[in-house]
Amino acid sequence: MQQPIKMERTGNPKAKPALTDMQLGFGQYFSDHMFLMDYTDGQGWHDPRIVPYAPLMLDPASMVFHYGQAVFEGMKAYRTTDGEAQLFLPERNAERLNRSLERLSMPPLEPGQLLNAVRTLVHVDQDWIPRQEGTSLYIRPFVIATEAAFGVRPSSRYLFTIVLSPVGAYFQEGLQPVDILAEAQDVRAVRGGTGSAKTAANYAGALRAQVEARAAGCSQVLWLDALERKYIEEVGSMNVFFRIAGHVYTPSLTGSILEGVTRGAVMELLDDWDVPCIARPISLDEVLEAAEAGTLEEAFGTGTAAVISPIGGIRWKDRFIPINGRQVGDLSQKLYDTMTGIQRGLIRDVYGWTTRI
Amino acid sequence: MQQPIKMERTGNPKAKPALTDMQLGFGQYFSDHMFLMDYTDGQGWHDPRIVPYAPLMLDPASMVFHYGQAVFEGMKAYRTTDGEAQLFLPERNAERLNRSLERLSMPPLEPGQLLNAVRTLVHVDQDWIPRQEGTSLYIRPFVIATEAAFGVRPSSRYLFTIVLSPVGAYFQEGLQPVDILAEAQDVRAVRGGTGSAKTAANYAGALRAQVEARAAGCSQVLWLDALERKYIEEVGSMNVFFRIAGHVYTPSLTGSILEGVTRGAVMELLDDWDVPCIARPISLDEVLEAAEAGTLEEAFGTGTAAVISPIGGIRWKDRFIPINGRQVGDLSQKLYDTMTGIQRGLIRDVYGWTTRI
Repeated sequence: MQQPIKMERTGNPKAKPALTDMQLGFGQYFSDHMFLMDYTDGQGWHDPRIVPYAPLMLDPASMVFHYGQAVFEGMKAYRTTDGEAQLFLPERNAERLNRSLERLSMPPLEPGQLLNAVRTLVHVDQDWIPRQEGTSLYIRPFVIATEAAFGVRPSSRYLFTIVLSPVGAYFQEGLQPVDILAEAQDVRAVRGGTGSAKTAANYAGALRAQVEARAAGCSQVLWLDALERKYIEEVGSMNVFFRIAGHVYTPSLTGSILEGVTRGAVMELLDDWDVPCIARPISLDEVLEAAEAGTLEEAFGTGTAAVISPIGGIRWKDRFIPINGRQVGDLSQKLYDTMTGIQRGLIRDVYGWTTRI
Repeated sequence: MQQPIKMERTGNPKAKPALTDMQLGFGQYFSDHMFLMDYTDGQGWHDPRIVPYAPLMLDPASMVFHYGQAVFEGMKAYRTTDGEAQLFLPERNAERLNRSLERLSMPPLEPGQLLNAVRTLVHVDQDWIPRQEGTSLYIRPFVIATEAAFGVRPSSRYLFTIVLSPVGAYFQEGLQPVDILAEAQDVRAVRGGTGSAKTAANYAGALRAQVEARAAGCSQVLWLDALERKYIEEVGSMNVFFRIAGHVYTPSLTGSILEGVTRGAVMELLDDWDVPCIARPISLDEVLEAAEAGTLEEAFGTGTAAVISPIGGIRWKDRFIPINGRQVGDLSQKLYDTMTGIQRGLIRDVYGWTTRI
């Protein structure tokens, strides 16, 4: 049985940014409250509470700063056109959070615990859900190790936190293709590592390539596998899809790739639309050859932040390979419209993906 | 020019643990003060200060919790037999810290900044340096990302912290061989990743194997390379050496292995002693074959925490391969005595490795 969530409301609500502004950006503003819960070995998860958003006080020897036990999730609450609020496939985030926790030798949450906490917190701060098309309330649950000790072993104490951030449209003028840089040196993850977990460790080593991509005029990194540096893994922090000669391909989950919630939903939609979609290893060479042969019809990334992100072209060493004349592809557009339509309640959710708050 | 370090002394010194006690453990107690310094884009490192040891206050959106920008160093202050205090090769820690920072897209420290901060802090808390043989004051400098935002990019703000912990002998009864488990599934790092940086990310994914090793009666993990799962990389968080038929071998620095300060000093000692020491790729098969042929004379790990850690045997799948009859080898003993002798001022430091505080 879950413990009741204690509530301490803020006496000083923040001035809200212009929530109708598409310039909200991503993760720049935070709502009035946050959810906290502690874990102690022997006692389990305890003291779930909602408190005013405030700094965390952590011993400088807290293990998270030294040995990286830190996992998170990313999800969104959407304001529907009828004024309600809803979540998109929160059960899948809960399942993935527990898989991430397990990989990092951290204690799992109890069934329903994440969803209950998210619903309660979003309800308290529901005025922070923006209404304009393309905006949403980004939800960031995360767990960090808080034991103050330097032995290299799993922590005996953890803190589970959820914060909320009203976010703008990922693309300020709707869907717009982005260029990506195929990374030849650095890698994101490897078989036997933490690539399939949503953990801080996967992002830390990826920043250098992200900086390099920006310098090359690209907005994201296209990651290749660590073993052969040949097979495509992800794009930035999104899963990636290629449409070649009417078939859609996405890298199979080999252990080093994150299993995206949006990836799963896109594959279900394609299946429903009778568009063949195959998850298998895809080499960069295969994609470049399809581009040269004129059969690479479109490419796009999928993730909670951008939903669908069309890819305008790939930079690889001294080449640049444009895709679909750098235009948004028909399939990318249809997927984006359908996904965001379901999320905002404009399209009836026949899939059971949404949960009202 | 470095900014002067502001000083705020504690009004409530802690009760010290029994500093002569070999049961101090590792990283369980922390001294009265800590060093802090901030970094802000455009302003650089600023406001170096020593303050009473206290929790850090960090926004829950601080990037360190989410994207893992966190690097650290490990060094020790030793009480010499004439009552002075000294550091061991601190310049190499400073160089490595800057290499780690660079890999994680974090700003480097200025030359001399780490050493100056360490000297000043250790001087303030010099009463915390234990005196008993085998004990020392462990020094943990670390840098974390503190900007509160969720975009995946390098932080614009960082916090540099140093804390001190009196630590006991790593082995309670002097040198004692430990068994290690060669890990068949998980990997620590891969070429193109962060393995050569001292960053939290390398430890996070390694904990699962460490738990597995403990369950198998071993105290450390022997890591194999991620590409072929064939070549030896490190043991736990130490570098590793094998003595085979009179020659000493240690894995070469391929980009996925940490360049240990103790590793470097051991190689210099061996060179000085005319013991052939070769850094090159070493396969686990080669070590197991040498063990079967009777030419594997000894094996040991090197690191700041344990200095020299003799290896009693290797567990690999369903086999257990004892080394040197599970006794401390002659070379391990001589290296340990020489290293700790120099560190404690019992042996004259002809190498220029030590720095008085």
